[in-house]
Amino acid sequence: MSATETPRATVAELAALVGGELVRGDGALQILRVMPTDRADHGAVTFVTRPEYIAKLADTKASAVILAPDLLERDDVDIPAQVAIIAAKKPYVAFAKAAQLLAKKVPAPVGVHASAVIEPGAEIGPDVAIGPFCVIGGGAKIGAGAVLYPGVHVEAEATVGAGSVLYNHVVVRHGCTVGARCILHPGVVIGSDGFGFALSMNEEGVPSHEKIPQVGDVVVEDDVEIGSNSCVDRGALGSTTIGVGTKIDNLVQIGHNVRVGRGAILVAQSGVAGSSTLEDGVILGAQSGISGHLTIGAGAVVLGQAGVMKDLEPKAQVAGTPAEPKRDFFRSVLRVGKLDSLFSRVKKLEALASREGSSS
Amino acid sequence: MSATETPRATVAELAALVGGELVRGDGALQILRVMPTDRADHGAVTFVTRPEYIAKLADTKASAVILAPDLLERDDVDIPAQVAIIAAKKPYVAFAKAAQLLAKKVPAPVGVHASAVIEPGAEIGPDVAIGPFCVIGGGAKIGAGAVLYPGVHVEAEATVGAGSVLYNHVVVRHGCTVGARCILHPGVVIGSDGFGFALSMNEEGVPSHEKIPQVGDVVVEDDVEIGSNSCVDRGALGSTTIGVGTKIDNLVQIGHNVRVGRGAILVAQSGVAGSSTLEDGVILGAQSGISGHLTIGAGAVVLGQAGVMKDLEPKAQVAGTPAEPKRDFFRSVLRVGKLDSLFSRVKKLEALASREGSSS
Amino acid sequence: MSATETPRATVAELAALVGGELVRGDGALQILRVMPTDRADHGAVTFVTRPEYIAKLADTKASAVILAPDLLERDDVDIPAQVAIIAAKKPYVAFAKAAQLLAKKVPAPVGVHASAVIEPGAEIGPDVAIGPFCVIGGGAKIGAGAVLYPGVHVEAEATVGAGSVLYNHVVVRHGCTVGARCILHPGVVIGSDGFGFALSMNEEGVPSHEKIPQVGDVVVEDDVEIGSNSCVDRGALGSTTIGVGTKIDNLVQIGHNVRVGRGAILVAQSGVAGSSTLEDGVILGAQSGISGHLTIGAGAVVLGQAGVMKDLEPKAQVAGTPAEPKRDFFRSVLRVGKLDSLFSRVKKLEALASREGSSS
Repeated sequence: MSATETPRATVAELAALVGGELVRGDGALQILRVMPTDRADHGAVTFVTRPEYIAKLADTKASAVILAPDLLERDDVDIPAQVAIIAAKKPYVAFAKAAQLLAKKVPAPVGVHASAVIEPGAEIGPDVAIGPFCVIGGGAKIGAGAVLYPGVHVEAEATVGAGSVLYNHVVVRHGCTVGARCILHPGVVIGSDGFGFALSMNEEGVPSHEKIPQVGDVVVEDDVEIGSNSCVDRGALGSTTIGVGTKIDNLVQIGHNVRVGRGAILVAQSGVAGSSTLEDGVILGAQSGISGHLTIGAGAVVLGQAGVMKDLEPKAQVAGTPAEPKRDFFRSVLRVGKLDSLFSRVKKLEALASREGSSS
Repeated sequence: MSATETPRATVAELAALVGGELVRGDGALQILRVMPTDRADHGAVTFVTRPEYIAKLADTKASAVILAPDLLERDDVDIPAQVAIIAAKKPYVAFAKAAQLLAKKVPAPVGVHASAVIEPGAEIGPDVAIGPFCVIGGGAKIGAGAVLYPGVHVEAEATVGAGSVLYNHVVVRHGCTVGARCILHPGVVIGSDGFGFALSMNEEGVPSHEKIPQVGDVVVEDDVEIGSNSCVDRGALGSTTIGVGTKIDNLVQIGHNVRVGRGAILVAQSGVAGSSTLEDGVILGAQSGISGHLTIGAGAVVLGQAGVMKDLEPKAQVAGTPAEPKRDFFRSVLRVGKLDSLFSRVKKLEALASREGSSS
Repeated sequence: MSATETPRATVAELAALVGGELVRGDGALQILRVMPTDRADHGAVTFVTRPEYIAKLADTKASAVILAPDLLERDDVDIPAQVAIIAAKKPYVAFAKAAQLLAKKVPAPVGVHASAVIEPGAEIGPDVAIGPFCVIGGGAKIGAGAVLYPGVHVEAEATVGAGSVLYNHVVVRHGCTVGARCILHPGVVIGSDGFGFALSMNEEGVPSHEKIPQVGDVVVEDDVEIGSNSCVDRGALGSTTIGVGTKIDNLVQIGHNVRVGRGAILVAQSGVAGSSTLEDGVILGAQSGISGHLTIGAGAVVLGQAGVMKDLEPKAQVAGTPAEPKRDFFRSVLRVGKLDSLFSRVKKLEALASREGSSS
């Protein structure tokens, strides 16, 4: 593993990087790290994205702050005089870029470790790092600058794109493709068999299921990130695909022949059943589930733990099981919470009706 | 890894294999692969299991099709003259068998890799393949023809049956048993400790729990398949058992002392808490959960995300949390969706009653 | 791996160990194992913690039994004369301690395997065991007596405390800390990146998210146990912390900057979103979820599959999604089950009102 090094940038360089404007302060000041407003010190840049955090600025020891122009215009903004101010329209994105630049390089594999098993016919690009106990199958291709942490297996005929990072114990099974600049966290499995069986009984009436061979593959496009121990199954006949720039959290399940569009967000422990399609920019909350053979429209948002059982329109926002529009779900929750009183009211009406009935 | 090879069969051989009847066409025609109806080409067999897919047959380029006799008798079936027709009573099972035969062999470990650590006293059967970086403990038994992908650990006194395939990084902990012809996908853990603690407080009132040693084991019977990163915990004192032919999807949790019967189907991210029993043929939908110490009757079906809190009768079909009969669940969902109008109707009745009360 | 050995204790030693009283029997009798009441034999100690299991005692072949003093005073207790009786106030805790003492030692790695990669600058304490194919990064510290099973990776600058056991394929990423006497089951990932992105669009309107570098760490305190394939993400800027004595089951997800207190219990497949705090002794049921940025009060209990969307008071007991007090949840479930009849009753009232309206 290589030595660590400390990146740095001037305030002016930071402003340029994030597409912001240096509103106040010394552009030549050196910035070494990003930190939260209340813990930032000299040499740190901090950021404020929401009005409720403005108050913390009054006491900050940061050397610079990134915030939105509209926050800057508020009466209650009080930033100590020594703090340089960078105005950026999307301060959270700006912060992300600043943090990317200033993130300390951590140790990573360098070169190809002597213990790695690289089978004949594998193509290893320039500047690839392959850690101890990795296995690269015949016909596999590892693109330039890719980094494979210890214990990664890239099987025969599989491809890993340039600049991708595969962390410890990641498995890319045979014939699957991982694009460029992807990040696969420890324990991710790409291309294990989809869950396909012809349910059946044997002569004695005991369930006995026939396996449908899963002969498709997985195509993970560029700039995808997949969290620890998540699984993407190979297609039964065709491909399971994860679109450009999609981000998947830990312990997520993607079934066979699923098609995830570009820039989707799948939060931890969510799952998508076989043959469903998520269009661009869909957001799945934690522990939510999508049934099989559905289409989830672009930009739809599925709240945590929701269970989606039918197609969703683009930009739909749903909650509950079976999932319904978010607004309906929360109104139903309110109504159900008042059922006790409704039962009482109906009882009272019945008593009244019975009294009137007997009195008339 | 070995070279790939292409299996093939004649139409007549296929018909015999699937127990079907060659209704039309040249029995000597060579079939090389299975494909979906709309993408099939010369040399491919396709299949139709549902009426809604019949229309696609008119344009297929497949050399043969497998379908049910009753579909064949429909007026709207139009199959191009060059397509051989195999009638099979269970076309999906027939397709599974055809696909198994025709699935291209993919590269797999061959022989015992020099880097594998095989401890003294391990018994390795004939024709076993053990990939790089595997570890086999003392007293472990690996049956004839089993295939261990790279990074598999079979600990001391554990057993893997003949013909089983353990994919990358599978762990079978000490003393556990995996039957014959099982398939364990990457990252499966068999026999880690069950979650057993005596909850307690220390003298200062801080929770401090005593671990209950988990000294049982796991018995996975023959023909079981378990998906990526799923976990089966060892029994606290006795065994956790997975019955013959059960199929388990990815990221599934099986607690200690659970008994799963034969031919059960556990879909992704479902979980079964300690000491529960699933009888033969139970189906657990995705993300569903079974509480501890329950008995789920044979053939019961638990819908996705359901939470089962009491025993289920055989063939019960349940949904929701707490789980109730599927029919009741969906009726309640409908009723709750109409609560807004019910509240209005009650309000109107109250207004009426109050007017009458004041007018009388 | 070392040979197994059989621990043993006298009945008197057991009574002292568990803080109980030898009420009857020969204190010098040798006890070799713990077993369930109905399967126990000579040399075994068994235990009864609940009244409903008392009946099984009449036929037990155990040499000794541990049970609570109040059970002992019941009329229906019938224990064969040859069974020694130990009275202990917390019989389940007593059983845990007895089982810990008597658990058969199972084979485990001994010494440092020749295949392990230990980088320069790693500090390996005395009596540490490191199995085959482990990787220890530069500057990592492994405390005295720790046991690393095959395939464990402890990255640079990470720390594993004395006496901890890391099972197969566990990954402790760079700079993270695992305390003393912890148990991490196979496939656990400590310190992978938190799920942090600035959601954005590119010029073509396609979602394109900026990664927020995750530069914090994970601190797992002493006596923590974490189940197979569970994940604890590193903090974005600060630390994710797991308090002393907390027990986490399999397939659990802990987001970045989460703080779990002491002695918490997180059951299988539960998840905690970023920046939430669980105070001491919180219990999360299986498949439950905690939204981000919440505080869950000490001793709160979240039932299985619940979805918590706001802060909880200490000792709160909640169920459902969104989570509400357990009592309210189950009352609502009952009410919803009677909606059919309520709709009928309102309909009848309306018919009555309409008749009266027309008759008046």
